[in-house]
Amino acid sequence: MVKIAFYLTPGGELLEQLSTEQIKNFMATGEGLLWIDMEDVSDEDAQILSNIFGFHPLAVEDCISKDIHPPKIDDFEDYLFIIIHGINYRIDPDVVETTELTIFLGKNYIVTSHDIPMRSVTSMLERVRKDGRTMRRGADFLAHDILDALVDNIMPVIQEMDERNDQLEAEALHEPDRETLVSIMALKRSILALTRVMLPQREIMNGLSRGQYDLISERAQIYYRNIYDHLVRIEMLTLGLRDMAESVLNTYLSSVSNRMNEVMKVLTLIATIFIPLTFIAGIYGMNFINMPELEWRYGYFTMLGVMAVIGISLVIYFKRKRWL
Amino acid sequence: MVKIAFYLTPGGELLEQLSTEQIKNFMATGEGLLWIDMEDVSDEDAQILSNIFGFHPLAVEDCISKDIHPPKIDDFEDYLFIIIHGINYRIDPDVVETTELTIFLGKNYIVTSHDIPMRSVTSMLERVRKDGRTMRRGADFLAHDILDALVDNIMPVIQEMDERNDQLEAEALHEPDRETLVSIMALKRSILALTRVMLPQREIMNGLSRGQYDLISERAQIYYRNIYDHLVRIEMLTLGLRDMAESVLNTYLSSVSNRMNEVMKVLTLIATIFIPLTFIAGIYGMNFINMPELEWRYGYFTMLGVMAVIGISLVIYFKRKRWL
Amino acid sequence: MVKIAFYLTPGGELLEQLSTEQIKNFMATGEGLLWIDMEDVSDEDAQILSNIFGFHPLAVEDCISKDIHPPKIDDFEDYLFIIIHGINYRIDPDVVETTELTIFLGKNYIVTSHDIPMRSVTSMLERVRKDGRTMRRGADFLAHDILDALVDNIMPVIQEMDERNDQLEAEALHEPDRETLVSIMALKRSILALTRVMLPQREIMNGLSRGQYDLISERAQIYYRNIYDHLVRIEMLTLGLRDMAESVLNTYLSSVSNRMNEVMKVLTLIATIFIPLTFIAGIYGMNFINMPELEWRYGYFTMLGVMAVIGISLVIYFKRKRWL
Amino acid sequence: MVKIAFYLTPGGELLEQLSTEQIKNFMATGEGLLWIDMEDVSDEDAQILSNIFGFHPLAVEDCISKDIHPPKIDDFEDYLFIIIHGINYRIDPDVVETTELTIFLGKNYIVTSHDIPMRSVTSMLERVRKDGRTMRRGADFLAHDILDALVDNIMPVIQEMDERNDQLEAEALHEPDRETLVSIMALKRSILALTRVMLPQREIMNGLSRGQYDLISERAQIYYRNIYDHLVRIEMLTLGLRDMAESVLNTYLSSVSNRMNEVMKVLTLIATIFIPLTFIAGIYGMNFINMPELEWRYGYFTMLGVMAVIGISLVIYFKRKRWL
Amino acid sequence: MVKIAFYLTPGGELLEQLSTEQIKNFMATGEGLLWIDMEDVSDEDAQILSNIFGFHPLAVEDCISKDIHPPKIDDFEDYLFIIIHGINYRIDPDVVETTELTIFLGKNYIVTSHDIPMRSVTSMLERVRKDGRTMRRGADFLAHDILDALVDNIMPVIQEMDERNDQLEAEALHEPDRETLVSIMALKRSILALTRVMLPQREIMNGLSRGQYDLISERAQIYYRNIYDHLVRIEMLTLGLRDMAESVLNTYLSSVSNRMNEVMKVLTLIATIFIPLTFIAGIYGMNFINMPELEWRYGYFTMLGVMAVIGISLVIYFKRKRWL
Repeated sequence: MVKIAFYLTPGGELLEQLSTEQIKNFMATGEGLLWIDMEDVSDEDAQILSNIFGFHPLAVEDCISKDIHPPKIDDFEDYLFIIIHGINYRIDPDVVETTELTIFLGKNYIVTSHDIPMRSVTSMLERVRKDGRTMRRGADFLAHDILDALVDNIMPVIQEMDERNDQLEAEALHEPDRETLVSIMALKRSILALTRVMLPQREIMNGLSRGQYDLISERAQIYYRNIYDHLVRIEMLTLGLRDMAESVLNTYLSSVSNRMNEVMKVLTLIATIFIPLTFIAGIYGMNFINMPELEWRYGYFTMLGVMAVIGISLVIYFKRKRWL
Repeated sequence: MVKIAFYLTPGGELLEQLSTEQIKNFMATGEGLLWIDMEDVSDEDAQILSNIFGFHPLAVEDCISKDIHPPKIDDFEDYLFIIIHGINYRIDPDVVETTELTIFLGKNYIVTSHDIPMRSVTSMLERVRKDGRTMRRGADFLAHDILDALVDNIMPVIQEMDERNDQLEAEALHEPDRETLVSIMALKRSILALTRVMLPQREIMNGLSRGQYDLISERAQIYYRNIYDHLVRIEMLTLGLRDMAESVLNTYLSSVSNRMNEVMKVLTLIATIFIPLTFIAGIYGMNFINMPELEWRYGYFTMLGVMAVIGISLVIYFKRKRWL
Repeated sequence: MVKIAFYLTPGGELLEQLSTEQIKNFMATGEGLLWIDMEDVSDEDAQILSNIFGFHPLAVEDCISKDIHPPKIDDFEDYLFIIIHGINYRIDPDVVETTELTIFLGKNYIVTSHDIPMRSVTSMLERVRKDGRTMRRGADFLAHDILDALVDNIMPVIQEMDERNDQLEAEALHEPDRETLVSIMALKRSILALTRVMLPQREIMNGLSRGQYDLISERAQIYYRNIYDHLVRIEMLTLGLRDMAESVLNTYLSSVSNRMNEVMKVLTLIATIFIPLTFIAGIYGMNFINMPELEWRYGYFTMLGVMAVIGISLVIYFKRKRWL
Repeated sequence: MVKIAFYLTPGGELLEQLSTEQIKNFMATGEGLLWIDMEDVSDEDAQILSNIFGFHPLAVEDCISKDIHPPKIDDFEDYLFIIIHGINYRIDPDVVETTELTIFLGKNYIVTSHDIPMRSVTSMLERVRKDGRTMRRGADFLAHDILDALVDNIMPVIQEMDERNDQLEAEALHEPDRETLVSIMALKRSILALTRVMLPQREIMNGLSRGQYDLISERAQIYYRNIYDHLVRIEMLTLGLRDMAESVLNTYLSSVSNRMNEVMKVLTLIATIFIPLTFIAGIYGMNFINMPELEWRYGYFTMLGVMAVIGISLVIYFKRKRWL
Repeated sequence: MVKIAFYLTPGGELLEQLSTEQIKNFMATGEGLLWIDMEDVSDEDAQILSNIFGFHPLAVEDCISKDIHPPKIDDFEDYLFIIIHGINYRIDPDVVETTELTIFLGKNYIVTSHDIPMRSVTSMLERVRKDGRTMRRGADFLAHDILDALVDNIMPVIQEMDERNDQLEAEALHEPDRETLVSIMALKRSILALTRVMLPQREIMNGLSRGQYDLISERAQIYYRNIYDHLVRIEMLTLGLRDMAESVLNTYLSSVSNRMNEVMKVLTLIATIFIPLTFIAGIYGMNFINMPELEWRYGYFTMLGVMAVIGISLVIYFKRKRWL
């Protein structure tokens, strides 16, 4: 669905919602700057991409398809085709979802497409609608602004994951149960998946900032370099997160076995104290005819005393050995 | 066994089942486009490959041999020799089997061979039989179409493995037994083996899409690039699967030890409650002559009450400590 | 906040605290050597950087921003923009904190900025204030001296971490508790984070020492090489620390399970010795009418003896088997 | 010890057992093709290598020395010096032994040496003795044939290790004891050692097949490429073996702990059932004067019934909870 | 401290203990070959290095400093500055100590320095003192001879570590205690540290043998290649050692848990056999008035028999299940 089309005329005027005819005209003259944003690309939209813009059928197919495409950049000389992943929201606390943004970047136009609304694109559209001059620096800067917003939106997710890690560590220490483990491992997998998406993304920005593509002006390259730097920072933080998740997993495992140990220890100690005492009681429950202690006046109380002494001694011994 | 031979004449006519003589003629004139598909290459077939096409004896040997050959591409100038692995079916839920497809790709012919029927080849043969024009874009495109179908058939297997992973995780959580472990480790090994096959495959497509070989026209390269992109996606998914399998293994191990812990805990608690009570019973089973409590009218009932109080207190204490 | 500005005139005189006007003059003439140090860069300072020095807005933004920036070097032809991390103090025994130093290195000036006071910069400022000739070797040497001091300050932290490792190993061996584990894992994470910061830092120095940048004179390059060598040494030590932390973690885990084993062993042994004895006492507590032993004169004492013999034999047996 | 020397004259005649004089003549004229095979190189043999062939003293030293030399290739312009490792037999089921073959490959001669008899060399000598024309394709092909036989002999060892892995897995599942563990770890180490030897070997073949050395004719290169392909296959299988060994180790560890768990579980269950019953018996063993149940006519049988009910209920409960 | 200075005159005469004046003369004329060896470099020595030889202050500083310097090679055009690590002795069976050797290698001189006596240098000095012609092949060969001796001295240490590994494995299998664990982990760390030192060392030799430095003649390069080959061998052995240490650690952990399992098993079995027997004794200790078995003539002996049967049956059952 063609959602929005902005056209900045050479004279600096901003037009919105162009007809197909107007787009054709623009492509013929090639003056001014055009931005078309498509959400949930329909077959009709694909027609525009193929016929009016003349994009390669494989690139158009990637736009239509709902499959996951790893980040990539293809150079078709007249235009660049970029797939980049943003993180818009997390459906569940422990699952990170990436959303794809595809950008066709031409000399004086860009065409963006995505399956669901993306905050970075929406905010940029708002800015352009308010002030057409946002587009005046050219197509490469416009693409940069969108990519920059997209990468900026990744940071808060990293922070959320960091907080979730801390929360899971506290849980692992103080009340580890099976759900904690499931969460820890889901978070760890999310972090690894994030790392795998960020790496090619970084390399794409590296290429854009190093003059590898003619469509990116020298002046714009340093701005792409800035996005690259952001991605390096995100990578460093993600690696830190990974170490953290590893360490939370260790905490969990050690915490669970600790708990079990404590239960076993205290219980076994109780049993151990009473076993020798029960043995003594057993002795005086024997029916031998000649057992002098049984005849003692205070035999019973003496034995109770002996048992108390033994029990208390064992408790003291265990305390000393720090087993209790 | 030469199964099928298609010949698209320069005039656009499609011939099937050519005689050896006709193939010889074709090689002499070099006009039109030829596709020969061989299943379970016999020595007789090998003769055709060696004598008529003049393929290198080592390449022909690779076609005949039933051994496993890692994916590779050899450039013999006049033709490319490609070995690629597809996944046709899974013999067992936890074992992935790869099947080899060898392709000789010449200027205006391709020769494919495989040991068992392959879905990707069969479906392509059908398409050509229905409409000869499928072959009209040349040998490089024909090879592309076959490779594309082969790579497309890998995705469903990845999905099956993903589902199997989920199923094993559920099993590991709720009824972990020895077979679960054996399945988890078999699946993990399959995933690792798959990763190892996919990596060289990706590199072959990379070479084909980057103009490294003269036999691939510039127009076809971008289509090979598309297969490369698919393999990158498969690689990303496979790495995700690997993390998943690792995490399922952890779940299993933790689940088994959890179960054992629970059994031990409850049983030890029962024992611990009865040991002090048995001790008390033992005391009043002693035969001392002077044990005042024994003479009490309600001594027996008092003691039963005391025991009940002790037992219940212990249960409450354990509940509080969350050991029960 | 512009803290300090030094200006070494071509005549060798040292001026301190220049006015904005004087800086403008300097930039116009380009004679002598200027060092400006800014702490906690304000918007006003940023104006100076942008307007007078003409630094790129993105670089200036990095100076103002309080975010963490990974180490990097950007070549703007007229000047280099370097971000480097130092370790100034450790807030907690098990957490390493890195502080950023940004350097603009021009032909005859350097501008340093940082959020908090840095020992390496402070000591260098002192040296210049005492003797202006410290600056006479040019901007590249001045930048070297600051970087050298910064890298030298990393060594003591490595040593502290090494000592902390030893201390934690002793703790893990002799009194492992939960805090020990938390400390071990925090230290391990710190070491990994340190490794990740040091690697790009080393690469930056490698670039500076290999003639990659025109602003570094050939004579200065070998001095940058020296910093590089220091960082290689730090890396080697850090890798050693990482192995050590891994080994401390193993010691901890093995120590905890050892302790549990010992408790369980001794207690189970006690129980095991008394269980057969209690059984014997139980036998002679039975009320059968015909139990000859009960009638024996010394039956009771005989049985006590038998019990003693059994108990002692078991203890000896366990000792022999080295279970006690 | 010079074992065998073959000389294929330019006229196609095959001479065996040449005198030192004849070898000297050959080196002077340089016509025909010479193959000398030395087993357990003596000082006398070394003289021939140094003086007649003029090989570099360091290379000759490597031939004499009984130390282990990693695979390598040295280019001395007039000749190549190759050290390659074969696997001739396995001294113990879990230890792989590699044997070294050194080859001097000149324009029209090869000199092979090894410490113990090698199957690949012996079989090649046989073939040449039977039919001198085996040597007619030149020194590079002769060297290829020997290397090919050597690499072919590695496959059966891989298969043996694979079978041994399966066998150890079965052992680990059904009767894990300490020897199983020792075997598993020895096998794992052997696999890792094999991997380490194969990697440089593959690289040597890569170099030989890529036209890096003038002594290998273009026609021979593709045959060396074939050996390279074999080594890639062996590498892939070895990596599969490594995963397998890892998984067998996991099976072992999990199997051992499983066994222990089972013993503990059943035994603890038995104990747990009898502890409450013993408590009840203890109660009616008390000597209180007023215990009404004792006076009941069928008190004893009632209590036996109660105990039976409790015992059976516990067994049913445990079965339900799947603890038994 | 300048320990020894050798001077081989152009005429082939060997002078020892030169005065500072003589060294100055040598540097002026540049004829003959000079070797100066310094142990524990003093400030006075540093003067000679700086003033007479004109070495770079940073290189001289590295000689004086007692810090650890990772292996490196710096090319100062007129001379090479090499830092290399040898292993002279092991202070403790499980700690490897590396000692540094620094070499200044000029066109016709070498200057070696080290903090403590080094076997490789000492033996070379002896050889030169005995026969001046050892130096006649030039400075590059002299440096080679020293480096070769140094690398040769590493092998015995590798062998000692290998033996120590075997010894620790035996200990881990038969009497694992805490010291065993501490030793295993210390050894493992030593092996890792050794690996880290050897890697740059290998690269240095690679550079020296590949014609990267003009001061190494082509004839000498192949000899440096030989040292490189030795280091490759050492690396391969070290990697084998690392696997071995990993496997010893596994053996230890499995051995400790095995021991604990055995203790627990036998003891629990004893307890389990007596618990049902004690229950039976408890039953006949009850005081019900109507317990027919108590009145039987041989009731007591019957019950003893029943107990014996139960006890023996349990033992047999456990043996069958292989739990005993």
